[in-house]
Amino acid sequence: MTLSSPSPAYAAVDWGTTSFRLWLIAGTGEILGERRSQEGMTTAAKSGFAPILNAHLSALGAGADLPVMICGMAGARQGWVEAGYLDVPAALGNCIGQAVRVPGEGRDVRILPGLAQRDADRPDVMRGEETQLLGALGDAQGSHLVCMPGTHSKWVRVEDGRVTGFSTFMSGELFDVLSKQSILSHAVADAAPFDGTHEAFRTAIAEAAAHPALATNLFFTVRSGQLLHGYDATRSKARLSGLTIGLEIAGALASTAPGTKVSLVASGPLAALYGAALQAAGLSPTLIDADLAVRDGLALAARTVWPA
Amino acid sequence: MTLSSPSPAYAAVDWGTTSFRLWLIAGTGEILGERRSQEGMTTAAKSGFAPILNAHLSALGAGADLPVMICGMAGARQGWVEAGYLDVPAALGNCIGQAVRVPGEGRDVRILPGLAQRDADRPDVMRGEETQLLGALGDAQGSHLVCMPGTHSKWVRVEDGRVTGFSTFMSGELFDVLSKQSILSHAVADAAPFDGTHEAFRTAIAEAAAHPALATNLFFTVRSGQLLHGYDATRSKARLSGLTIGLEIAGALASTAPGTKVSLVASGPLAALYGAALQAAGLSPTLIDADLAVRDGLALAARTVWPA
Repeated sequence: MTLSSPSPAYAAVDWGTTSFRLWLIAGTGEILGERRSQEGMTTAAKSGFAPILNAHLSALGAGADLPVMICGMAGARQGWVEAGYLDVPAALGNCIGQAVRVPGEGRDVRILPGLAQRDADRPDVMRGEETQLLGALGDAQGSHLVCMPGTHSKWVRVEDGRVTGFSTFMSGELFDVLSKQSILSHAVADAAPFDGTHEAFRTAIAEAAAHPALATNLFFTVRSGQLLHGYDATRSKARLSGLTIGLEIAGALASTAPGTKVSLVASGPLAALYGAALQAAGLSPTLIDADLAVRDGLALAARTVWPA
Repeated sequence: MTLSSPSPAYAAVDWGTTSFRLWLIAGTGEILGERRSQEGMTTAAKSGFAPILNAHLSALGAGADLPVMICGMAGARQGWVEAGYLDVPAALGNCIGQAVRVPGEGRDVRILPGLAQRDADRPDVMRGEETQLLGALGDAQGSHLVCMPGTHSKWVRVEDGRVTGFSTFMSGELFDVLSKQSILSHAVADAAPFDGTHEAFRTAIAEAAAHPALATNLFFTVRSGQLLHGYDATRSKARLSGLTIGLEIAGALASTAPGTKVSLVASGPLAALYGAALQAAGLSPTLIDADLAVRDGLALAARTVWPA
């Protein structure tokens, strides 16, 4: 018997609005290859989804019949094939059976659906985060409040593996447009990196939580603080970040019972910033790596659809 | 004796970030001519301030020695000549004596200073609104809370002709960047005009006031409401407008004693929207036309500096 590299059983793809990530995974769960690019839905909607996917698979030497499990914005109406939504409340595992097969492809390519909350007052949608949740929680019992920071942060209530409700806060996008497209851009340009220990970040979290209705006034102080007090760009950017994150956390926790256990599904700098912000709010979140969670969710879906 | 047109005593100019307005005014106060253009500070900083001013004066046949009183962003650091700030508390009339003369011009051109609030926690600045306030209130006695909506709305406390404090809310700019640069642009594109009677506008004002910490979640419902409920662009835009204005009003009124008299200095559609929003909040604002107010403030300054 000779030792040989295992062959891939399937590919897992997290296809977001602006990013593409692919993993080649063996039946054992071993990761055999990975690709990352900026060819998100926005790019792919113009250049085509199949050529992008196939180029990445070819680059890793994947066979023409390797099946592919996809989550994220590739399943949006403006994506590759619309994968619809499961309405909440919904068991996370039910997403798997609703994966939509992409027609006309030689290989078996499936896209997982998102989740929809069809309330009259608080309609909401997610695409991709349901797969992260599947990987992070599976059918874990108990009551979980899950914070998933990002361009459009999600706060999700999960009971015994069922999503019972969720809220999207567009904090990341708000921070981005204010930093780049508003008068505040003058104050934050060329900021150095900062983290959750920056005093301006921590002060801003407390201010936003104490005076949420003053949000757009507090945002403006980023500019006036530069003009009148000469505050530097790093301090200004840390303040703006703390204001947007602090507002979100105050809103998300407003209807949450004290003592609720919070999980934080995040990676990289956002994990550190939100971890610091949640701790400042008196919480001790359990950190779950978002990259691992989405890969685990895709792998669980693939093993269910294509059992070895 | 023959009747003849009166000759102008001075020109008054409101020179904002993106707009230029000039009036030719007689010693009697009669308006002899008016010019409006989009040659605001942003344009003028590139092409030069003097050529723009002189072209508009020439077009109205003004003499080479006609004095000119200017307020607004022309006095910013990145403007024509920096006119500095008066620190609050400050009597509105004191702005006049601090007008800065533009050097090197044949005619007497002066730019009025702005106001600065040098608090450590709530630094704030205004340029142009102090001249509107001068025209709107002068040295009127009593306590006034003045709402001045715009790209950067100002809420100003005035006691017996003295500004005691003010707060800028960047609601207008927030509405603008969210409408044009964010995911919400898909939901509000091609909206029809709406006014303060639109139900989505009125509902949104109440929602933002009731749940200010949910602001960035409520913003996102503009997109999810389109996706899940098929809400049209006009309804979506009215909702976004109501959310940003409602948040501002809730914040501005949070520290205000019930029964405070509010003046609304505004023109055009903004006057109608804020009037409706303030009434929905239980207030009966006195409406003062913003265009007239700035012209009156400039005229008062000109008559003081150049008495007939």
